[in-house]
Amino acid sequence: MFKQTTNRRVAAFLADGCEEVEALAVLDVLFRSGVPCDTVSITGNRDIVSSHEIHVTCDKTIDQLNFDDYDVLFLPGGMPGTTNLAACQPLVSQVDRFAAGAGIVAAICAAPAVVLARRGLLKGRRATSNPNFQHEIAENGGTLVADQPVVRDGNIITSQGMGTAIYLGLELVSELVSPQAAEDVKPRIVFWG
Amino acid sequence: MFKQTTNRRVAAFLADGCEEVEALAVLDVLFRSGVPCDTVSITGNRDIVSSHEIHVTCDKTIDQLNFDDYDVLFLPGGMPGTTNLAACQPLVSQVDRFAAGAGIVAAICAAPAVVLARRGLLKGRRATSNPNFQHEIAENGGTLVADQPVVRDGNIITSQGMGTAIYLGLELVSELVSPQAAEDVKPRIVFWG
Repeated sequence: MFKQTTNRRVAAFLADGCEEVEALAVLDVLFRSGVPCDTVSITGNRDIVSSHEIHVTCDKTIDQLNFDDYDVLFLPGGMPGTTNLAACQPLVSQVDRFAAGAGIVAAICAAPAVVLARRGLLKGRRATSNPNFQHEIAENGGTLVADQPVVRDGNIITSQGMGTAIYLGLELVSELVSPQAAEDVKPRIVFWG
Repeated sequence: MFKQTTNRRVAAFLADGCEEVEALAVLDVLFRSGVPCDTVSITGNRDIVSSHEIHVTCDKTIDQLNFDDYDVLFLPGGMPGTTNLAACQPLVSQVDRFAAGAGIVAAICAAPAVVLARRGLLKGRRATSNPNFQHEIAENGGTLVADQPVVRDGNIITSQGMGTAIYLGLELVSELVSPQAAEDVKPRIVFWG
């Protein structure tokens, strides 16, 4: 049962070929902590097929979205899902706007590099990503933090991959609800960090 | 891209109210390791809605299933999903048969208690579960192992919850492919254990 604890909302953008667990593990932690989230398909309809052939029906499609209703734009990784996110103009124009100060941008795995770094959004920022893409952070003017599962620099929060998705969820709970709420949810997910 | 490494197959049973990440994180690790898996809905159709209101369309429905095609029956937790699994007669009769030697049974979170322990299947076995349900293991003749994320006793493999699902996936890869394959997939998921 969902018990809302904040009015701050998260939009998670799912593409065909996304890494579904990177998306859903973050949303799981947020749901349990009472943070309203919507899954948003960037395809023409609500159905997406993940990189592991899991079929998910999203809450909304991107053309239905009022971005002003959200405080966080969340980009999961996976291939070719991340490439699809980077090519989605209605999405990346809003990612630019949020990164410039309109909200929080969270990205995991390939997304910090393929979406954020390549758009210049990590310039002067500390960030992390999937190890295979970490070179792009420095190449695009950022400061790589390779030894942490999640890295926050102001309004940009990045994480490394499927195995660190829970850490990203906890960081978002800490920001959107409270650090105590992030501690409180750990036993409920049997956090094994 | 899926590259099959074994002919041994896993059936994951999804109910309305299941904990989707407990199911999908295990399947993610298996997919990456080349283990063929099917998601199987125990409702009358392929669509299920998880305990966190995620809509997943399964590969099959249980009435289409030939259980002899599978080597592992995998039961995720979540509420009321686990109660729904326990009440699904076509499923639990096969769980009994697999536990008796026809194959492997894997269960996580509430499922080791609510499905396996309550059916007497953990009698004389070492097992674990979600901390809130661990008392049922001893009450039903099993030996609780509380300090491990995943416990194997012969053909029954149990795990504690969402935060330990990756460990269950790795244990299944070790069994179905090889211990080396389980090591090999860890960097690919950015394992942070």
